[in-house]
Amino acid sequence: MNIAFIGLGNMGAPMARNLLKSGHTLHLFDLNQTVLAELAELGGNISASPKDAAAQGDLVITMLPAATHVRSVYLSEDGVLAGIRQGTPAVDCSTIDPQTARDICAAAAAQGVDLGDAPVSGGTGGAQAGTLTFMVGASADLFGQLQPVLAQMGRNIVHCGEVGTGQIAKICNNLLLGISMIGVSEAMALGNALGIDTQVLAGIINSSTGRCWSSDTYNPWPGVIETAPAARGYSGGFGAELMLKDLGLATEAAKQVRQPVIMGALAQQLYQAMSLRGDGGLDFSAIIKAYQPR
Amino acid sequence: MNIAFIGLGNMGAPMARNLLKSGHTLHLFDLNQTVLAELAELGGNISASPKDAAAQGDLVITMLPAATHVRSVYLSEDGVLAGIRQGTPAVDCSTIDPQTARDICAAAAAQGVDLGDAPVSGGTGGAQAGTLTFMVGASADLFGQLQPVLAQMGRNIVHCGEVGTGQIAKICNNLLLGISMIGVSEAMALGNALGIDTQVLAGIINSSTGRCWSSDTYNPWPGVIETAPAARGYSGGFGAELMLKDLGLATEAAKQVRQPVIMGALAQQLYQAMSLRGDGGLDFSAIIKAYQPR
Amino acid sequence: MNIAFIGLGNMGAPMARNLLKSGHTLHLFDLNQTVLAELAELGGNISASPKDAAAQGDLVITMLPAATHVRSVYLSEDGVLAGIRQGTPAVDCSTIDPQTARDICAAAAAQGVDLGDAPVSGGTGGAQAGTLTFMVGASADLFGQLQPVLAQMGRNIVHCGEVGTGQIAKICNNLLLGISMIGVSEAMALGNALGIDTQVLAGIINSSTGRCWSSDTYNPWPGVIETAPAARGYSGGFGAELMLKDLGLATEAAKQVRQPVIMGALAQQLYQAMSLRGDGGLDFSAIIKAYQPR
Amino acid sequence: MNIAFIGLGNMGAPMARNLLKSGHTLHLFDLNQTVLAELAELGGNISASPKDAAAQGDLVITMLPAATHVRSVYLSEDGVLAGIRQGTPAVDCSTIDPQTARDICAAAAAQGVDLGDAPVSGGTGGAQAGTLTFMVGASADLFGQLQPVLAQMGRNIVHCGEVGTGQIAKICNNLLLGISMIGVSEAMALGNALGIDTQVLAGIINSSTGRCWSSDTYNPWPGVIETAPAARGYSGGFGAELMLKDLGLATEAAKQVRQPVIMGALAQQLYQAMSLRGDGGLDFSAIIKAYQPR
Repeated sequence: MNIAFIGLGNMGAPMARNLLKSGHTLHLFDLNQTVLAELAELGGNISASPKDAAAQGDLVITMLPAATHVRSVYLSEDGVLAGIRQGTPAVDCSTIDPQTARDICAAAAAQGVDLGDAPVSGGTGGAQAGTLTFMVGASADLFGQLQPVLAQMGRNIVHCGEVGTGQIAKICNNLLLGISMIGVSEAMALGNALGIDTQVLAGIINSSTGRCWSSDTYNPWPGVIETAPAARGYSGGFGAELMLKDLGLATEAAKQVRQPVIMGALAQQLYQAMSLRGDGGLDFSAIIKAYQPR
Repeated sequence: MNIAFIGLGNMGAPMARNLLKSGHTLHLFDLNQTVLAELAELGGNISASPKDAAAQGDLVITMLPAATHVRSVYLSEDGVLAGIRQGTPAVDCSTIDPQTARDICAAAAAQGVDLGDAPVSGGTGGAQAGTLTFMVGASADLFGQLQPVLAQMGRNIVHCGEVGTGQIAKICNNLLLGISMIGVSEAMALGNALGIDTQVLAGIINSSTGRCWSSDTYNPWPGVIETAPAARGYSGGFGAELMLKDLGLATEAAKQVRQPVIMGALAQQLYQAMSLRGDGGLDFSAIIKAYQPR
Repeated sequence: MNIAFIGLGNMGAPMARNLLKSGHTLHLFDLNQTVLAELAELGGNISASPKDAAAQGDLVITMLPAATHVRSVYLSEDGVLAGIRQGTPAVDCSTIDPQTARDICAAAAAQGVDLGDAPVSGGTGGAQAGTLTFMVGASADLFGQLQPVLAQMGRNIVHCGEVGTGQIAKICNNLLLGISMIGVSEAMALGNALGIDTQVLAGIINSSTGRCWSSDTYNPWPGVIETAPAARGYSGGFGAELMLKDLGLATEAAKQVRQPVIMGALAQQLYQAMSLRGDGGLDFSAIIKAYQPR
Repeated sequence: MNIAFIGLGNMGAPMARNLLKSGHTLHLFDLNQTVLAELAELGGNISASPKDAAAQGDLVITMLPAATHVRSVYLSEDGVLAGIRQGTPAVDCSTIDPQTARDICAAAAAQGVDLGDAPVSGGTGGAQAGTLTFMVGASADLFGQLQPVLAQMGRNIVHCGEVGTGQIAKICNNLLLGISMIGVSEAMALGNALGIDTQVLAGIINSSTGRCWSSDTYNPWPGVIETAPAARGYSGGFGAELMLKDLGLATEAAKQVRQPVIMGALAQQLYQAMSLRGDGGLDFSAIIKAYQPR
């Protein structure tokens, strides 16, 4: 299939590589010439603009850092909507606020283009291994068209509902994830300060009502889970700055609909304080450092 | 075995019943004459005081509402330590602060009595069914003596470490539980306000990084989990007042060791606000009402 | 002086009236025809667009609800910058985020227009009485030009620094105001619950280290200050929705510079919860209701 | 007058010195022999126990670190109530929880002793200069008896109501103070990060609705107020550990009456985190360091 792929950063590039491996013809655009050259060596075609890429695709995929880029890539003069043929399916895999997602999808629909949102989880590791989870907001028909291609880049392709619901699912999950991680950090640090063995405590929590992914799979206390970033100095994993970005999207979306997220806003601020302390480059589980003596 | 059992409230009475069923001889004390009469009909012996009960037991079990009662039952003139024979094992199943637990155990040790702490989870349902979890703080030797008897009242008998660690495990787990429940409430209510189907959202969270017991087993959104209190008007379950008590124990213990629990303290206050609104009698998952329009 | 005045809502209309009274010739624009007609009767001239109004002013003043309107009024095809003569001073009195203020001022500067920001405090009462406080972000030269005219609409005309600092001053003050009001609410409600006379408590706080404007001038406890909204059912005053807007601007600006505002974010959420409960139309001191039994 | 004075720490010793200067005969007790010797040189009489001191006083004054000491000094075998003559007025100047204050006053009343609570503000500087504020919980009659003597140690002698209300007034004021100080810290740090001159910002706040003691008298930003601890590296002043103690009393009292103090609990945790970072010995305005880059 001819696929236009726009946005080839840490996530987009390995995703595009997996599509090339699956035998698709890719029409690529990014501002970074180095990554374009690398993918051209693997057989990709370099386009001069999002518009040009879109014009040659039977499907358009975008993977961009933030709403402002998505807006620009779709709506500018040289953008996707200026080049895409009517009836061509498109999907934006960026993580952005649901309202912008809906606005751009509406702009696409106005010219006969069926655009869905499909933010991912799984990180750069999942992108390389092709094991991402895609949370897809799209009509049933569009979902049917996207599903086989997304499945070549990921393992779980979940239909969340109409356009925008992919973003909603992602920010709600990550809102809870940020809260849980801080909750686990407080519980582990408190237990340690009070004198229980942290390995024992984690075991009890994980077989009781406190159990959660942040505790049983990604425990922030060093040594509890051998494969977690805590066991390797909080390197790799899901960066605190990305968690901060997602918490920012969640509280902003909550503000728009006047929905309180009291714990979520506190989590956002605690990650902001972590960023101010200069630890934003660490895995998000390093928030536990805020609960340990210097 | 001759067992002294002191404290026959909503939890203690069904626990004692299970021990009677197992064939033990019970020496019972409580201030409530009605429950004593009921258990006497089942074959229990009524004692005049904690001291008298303890004097006749080869094992002493206590199950009391709060630290002040534990202190009084063990340390007063008519108390357990005034009657218990040297060398007799004892276990307090009350949920109290770890420091009081350690203080009373030290007082017991000073007169040759090996006292452990073993708070439970599982609620009145678990007490009746004999499926409680016991989190036991005790020496290895004492744990070995207690384990077979506790196993007649519960399913999971976990050795947490030395005296006091049972309480620590419980309050750390419940600290995290309170935080998680509010986190799930915020995520579900936000998703609903933004327009995703709550059943779909719960499904995504439960197969993703936000998954936790509060989401996959006890989801506060009505109808998501058929067996959860949310499906029956938040009746039954684990009362908000009990969660409030446990969060109070956790923040108080944290204060004693100067350990911040920022989210935990916020959770405590949100449950306090729930209590002020008059909803303290509901299951603790009803905290989600704070996130829904009146 | 010929003054273009754009934005004639609850604040803008009485401000414009005060300028008319001072003898200026006004060129007015708003989407609301009724208010235009009213001001025309007082001698104002109606313009067809922001562009037309600006073209006729020796000074341009704007007073708009939010950043999106400011952007549109200045930057659209029919906007102020399309009509204003080079060298004409201009001032935006809207309360918006500092970054948008700076962006629009930079756009103005690019075509030789010296635009400053001057958000106000004092509410509709201050606008009518001409007793507003203007927090002005402008070059020293521009401030000198604006000061005499602003003084005809307000009492305190404060020079905060370069462009954008007016907005910064306002959101920082109101961030603190929101926090203080909740702090006073908690202190008064706690004192009352513990059994001290609230009038006595307010007196002590007001002569001690807890004293603040929210306590000594605008106390949220009914009856403590006779002139405060609390004494008249929380009507009038500074609406909770406006406080919520300002807290939203403050936390958003903080996010942009990665500056934690932990208490501020919590204040925002508590006002959001107040809005969800349906009390957003009350004075912002009614936040104390969250601390009183239903 | 013969006055029994028990508790001669950093606050009690200078208070006792002022009473000696005023010509009273003092009967002193403390565990610290050094301070007793110093005060004996100034003419004080050393007693062997609180009981002995109380037996010789026409008035009893106590000034102790915490509730546990107050309990012991009044209620133990060698305590004040064992020695004091019926009808003798007494006042406890310690800062403790209102419930303990009431309990001990009730115990005193039961044997015909009229005991009031009168916690102070003003710190060691105020104790030395005799400029303390006393917040007095006492019957009108007892207040009349205490007032002249307290006035020899302080400047403001405020009658707060019945027994316990002195403590209530103090913890409510300090709850608000802790919240305000953090609020000012956030506002000043945000303004600085956004680019306004902090001196200008403080000036605006102090003449606007954000003004408070923490901003206009004790501003935490270095250099804004020359006499504030911020201008001398946060040394001297009101220690963060004392603020943490008072916030602990406030949240504990709130818990007892089920009164939410959401901001107050957050303030407590932020001071706890400051203590964990090792900054508990600094003035409480140093909380602003949590909002500055390392």
